[in-house]
Amino acid sequence: MKYAVGVDVGGTSVKMGLVSESGDIRTTHSFPTDLSDGGANIIPDVAGEVASLLIKEGITREMTAGVGIGVPGPVTSDGTVNRCVNLGWGRINIKEELEKRLERAFPVFAANDANAATLGEVWLGAGRGCGNACLITVGTGIGAGMVCEGRMIYGAFGASGELGHITYKPGESRLCTCGKRGCVEQYASATGIMHMAKEAGLSCAGDVKEIYDAARNGNPDALRVTRNAADALGFAMSCASAAADPEVFIIGGGVSGAGAILMEQLEESFSRYVFHASRDARIVLAALGNDAGIYGCAKMVFDGINLR
Amino acid sequence: MKYAVGVDVGGTSVKMGLVSESGDIRTTHSFPTDLSDGGANIIPDVAGEVASLLIKEGITREMTAGVGIGVPGPVTSDGTVNRCVNLGWGRINIKEELEKRLERAFPVFAANDANAATLGEVWLGAGRGCGNACLITVGTGIGAGMVCEGRMIYGAFGASGELGHITYKPGESRLCTCGKRGCVEQYASATGIMHMAKEAGLSCAGDVKEIYDAARNGNPDALRVTRNAADALGFAMSCASAAADPEVFIIGGGVSGAGAILMEQLEESFSRYVFHASRDARIVLAALGNDAGIYGCAKMVFDGINLR
Repeated sequence: MKYAVGVDVGGTSVKMGLVSESGDIRTTHSFPTDLSDGGANIIPDVAGEVASLLIKEGITREMTAGVGIGVPGPVTSDGTVNRCVNLGWGRINIKEELEKRLERAFPVFAANDANAATLGEVWLGAGRGCGNACLITVGTGIGAGMVCEGRMIYGAFGASGELGHITYKPGESRLCTCGKRGCVEQYASATGIMHMAKEAGLSCAGDVKEIYDAARNGNPDALRVTRNAADALGFAMSCASAAADPEVFIIGGGVSGAGAILMEQLEESFSRYVFHASRDARIVLAALGNDAGIYGCAKMVFDGINLR
Repeated sequence: MKYAVGVDVGGTSVKMGLVSESGDIRTTHSFPTDLSDGGANIIPDVAGEVASLLIKEGITREMTAGVGIGVPGPVTSDGTVNRCVNLGWGRINIKEELEKRLERAFPVFAANDANAATLGEVWLGAGRGCGNACLITVGTGIGAGMVCEGRMIYGAFGASGELGHITYKPGESRLCTCGKRGCVEQYASATGIMHMAKEAGLSCAGDVKEIYDAARNGNPDALRVTRNAADALGFAMSCASAAADPEVFIIGGGVSGAGAILMEQLEESFSRYVFHASRDARIVLAALGNDAGIYGCAKMVFDGINLR
């Protein structure tokens, strides 16, 4: 049995797991992300923890297929990150750096974290068996990843799955964090929903969960706000369908905790915008939670090796 | 040297070409599309003409890699067409039907015509060497195809590259041919441009070429109309970038004859909507003209065989 180490690097912690070819996580481990010195210690830390994990678990070099690493920024298919604000990185080839640190004992595969998580959900989660899938994580921001014809899509600039930055309202006066105006993320993310709730004068608006609770109880303002959010996201999903035509949209992230009401609203808004040929695309909740990234990073390794 | 037959089935004629592995068209042939009997004769006709072409050219069974066929409708990766209005087809597996007619002498690969043409431009045309590319043909309607990570994208329902049916103006009163309102195609296609020119009372509006000529000469109404068209298309391109992040957009079809003025307007509108990470995507004119489909259909065969 071969094993891969899946490494999901976040802005606060690094999560890693030892995953078998058959998809079992044998052990997991996490440690704080060291953001000092422009994130210069992150790759050395990851390398050290990977080596330590393998030795502790008694996984020999022959049993190790490689390491997959996901980071919260654009990554091209050769492993180059072109600025990762959350980690303080400029331009860096993380595949190359990590392979060097690991003394080239095994190959490293790198990707954007949302793209890797999509591969994880397709391998073992809500998109199991789908050759064409799109994962959308709705949290503080919106992340998304695409798998097309069975392969994770990097994109030419590492920017596939940036569905949160599709323009939804060209006339919007507020700026998005990306510098544009009227991005889907400004309405459909937790941040966007809270903003709209505040504008609507919603007294219940302590957090997104409260807003969905109020909507579920029939509060008209809360219903309007949550429907607006779903309209923006359903529109973005219809654009993803027009481009790549996924079979399934997998919804994850904190806001997906709203459950059935969110799914119903998304079904409605998606069917409003989608081209008829793609209207049977399914919309489902993510199944792997925080482990999707670890699974997907490991799967990159197994897929990468199979491609050779 | 191996050869493939590329077959591009259109609503009025079928174009085919004998293409070598190295990308040379050895001979081409075309014949009228028989639309009688719900298009029931099309596949038998294609099979007969393929057999005849190979024998006339002295290409033996051993020298034939296979046949690639492109049709103007959604095609899934197993070769199933799910309604092709232009040809009168309902549900039909054209890969299966054509292989049977050809007595299973060689494999058949099938795709949507725009997807196949994209593969052609990536192989030998304006997208040469690009792993991620999007071809948009702007004519009476708008067709598009996607190549991601070096592979043609079919999509789950055969509906990848339907960029013309992204919603551009949700408040539009007119219906699109697809049944939705405000689709990109209603503004950016030749039909859409003519409609807007008529609405603007443009006297020069005999055809699209005249409108672009007037715009080039500084006619303010013609400038406005052509800029509106480019705004709709640039928006659709930004959505394709957000989903799949192509390196290059290749513009073909009748309207692309407008040349430089169209390219400038598209650069401007695309940069207005695109997420910053993808802003360096290039916009270029198609290079293979009507032969893109033949080349792409042949390339499907060579790629399909290499994948085995």
